[in-house]
Amino acid sequence: MRPTDLLHTSEQRHDDGVLERGFTLDGIPGILWTSGSAPAPASAPLILLGHPGDLRRMYPRLAGRAREAVAAGFAAATIELPGSGDRPRSAEADRARAELRRAVEAGEPVPDEVVDRLVLPLVEQAVPEWQAALDALLAVPGIGGPVGFSGGVISVGVRLAAVEPRVAAAVLFAGSYVPRAVVEEARRVAVPLLVLLQWDDEGNDRQQALDLFDALGSKEKTLHANLGGHTGVPAFEGEDVTRFFVRHLT
Amino acid sequence: MRPTDLLHTSEQRHDDGVLERGFTLDGIPGILWTSGSAPAPASAPLILLGHPGDLRRMYPRLAGRAREAVAAGFAAATIELPGSGDRPRSAEADRARAELRRAVEAGEPVPDEVVDRLVLPLVEQAVPEWQAALDALLAVPGIGGPVGFSGGVISVGVRLAAVEPRVAAAVLFAGSYVPRAVVEEARRVAVPLLVLLQWDDEGNDRQQALDLFDALGSKEKTLHANLGGHTGVPAFEGEDVTRFFVRHLT
Repeated sequence: MRPTDLLHTSEQRHDDGVLERGFTLDGIPGILWTSGSAPAPASAPLILLGHPGDLRRMYPRLAGRAREAVAAGFAAATIELPGSGDRPRSAEADRARAELRRAVEAGEPVPDEVVDRLVLPLVEQAVPEWQAALDALLAVPGIGGPVGFSGGVISVGVRLAAVEPRVAAAVLFAGSYVPRAVVEEARRVAVPLLVLLQWDDEGNDRQQALDLFDALGSKEKTLHANLGGHTGVPAFEGEDVTRFFVRHLT
Repeated sequence: MRPTDLLHTSEQRHDDGVLERGFTLDGIPGILWTSGSAPAPASAPLILLGHPGDLRRMYPRLAGRAREAVAAGFAAATIELPGSGDRPRSAEADRARAELRRAVEAGEPVPDEVVDRLVLPLVEQAVPEWQAALDALLAVPGIGGPVGFSGGVISVGVRLAAVEPRVAAAVLFAGSYVPRAVVEEARRVAVPLLVLLQWDDEGNDRQQALDLFDALGSKEKTLHANLGGHTGVPAFEGEDVTRFFVRHLT
């Protein structure tokens, strides 16, 4: 077995027929959701579900998004982020995260170098992992392309959309601070984009998110901003995300 | 006949069964679109279609929006704006418009007082006219409530949503300069809102539009921003507008 093969660790079938398979890939845990109905679609487009880290904590929301995607004809998958869940923590990232929180709570501007120390190593490590996951997932019978990325960490999504040609469309959740270097990389992104912004996100910088939206190079890009805080994305945005991917991946 | 009664001036039935009736109301021209199928819905919700003025020039786009609305179960109507189309022009508004264009073309900031002179008298005159149109339209058999406003001039839509309790939801097209007084009034708006912004609108001020979105008092408000210039609103936004009104008016 090549180290990049999926090793299935669990399997369950939900009431709605969705087949959920846990896996590890080179030691990284992940989850794959597909239509369990026979015959499965010959080659379903795949949506990679981004998240802020910790699959166990994020599971209810990820599973909900995944089952919406499968109901619309997609396969969906996610992997754990570096430093989160059961993966080894990064002391440097923990320090930077604490400094960022301290600044936000004190109402002070977050220094660029703190954002860089928190986010850039994460992007550097996570993006090749998502690419390896893509290699393995696209080899699973019934999963084809094209591929969409959906969610956060937005810097991971931007880098992935900029460097990975198999990603044909992306929904980016503007819910975290973005290094200046990633804003520059955003100009290279060319695929259709839907950017979700929570207008009064308590742990995010609205102007930075708007600047990032402005910088994204795609000719077709849409921003959806809503009230409700970081976790308050309205349910109707889930439907908009599905329609966006139906438009661009099917 | 009371001066606020509709005087029908034309009637045509389109291929898709939509009944289009021209009318005048106290001398102001308008158009009403309803389902022509029998039996008509007992009491269709009504969408008021806002526009920048000149019904003849705007007709193709208004008719397209209206027929989408009727297909989704609504009645739709619009009236001419003061100073536009066949209505008497305002020399003062023409002067202010010329000053605004000169500033925009020179790349200079548009003085607040120019925006005030252009937009405030329009709002003052147009909003009572839309309210009178509402009185008359809601008396037409088959048209009930609730009522939505959809389009521009955004300052007219904001004032109408702030002062007219029959307006239960609004889609606001952020495509024109907004007087500071209207931004203050926006805080009184409480109905669900969808604000459409063309990110690179050549004749609009993006920051002013974002400030207005921020000021709007509604607890449920969504901003959709797209590329494509003032007239380049993507077709899928038309579907989003329809879904927004289905959510809030039916």
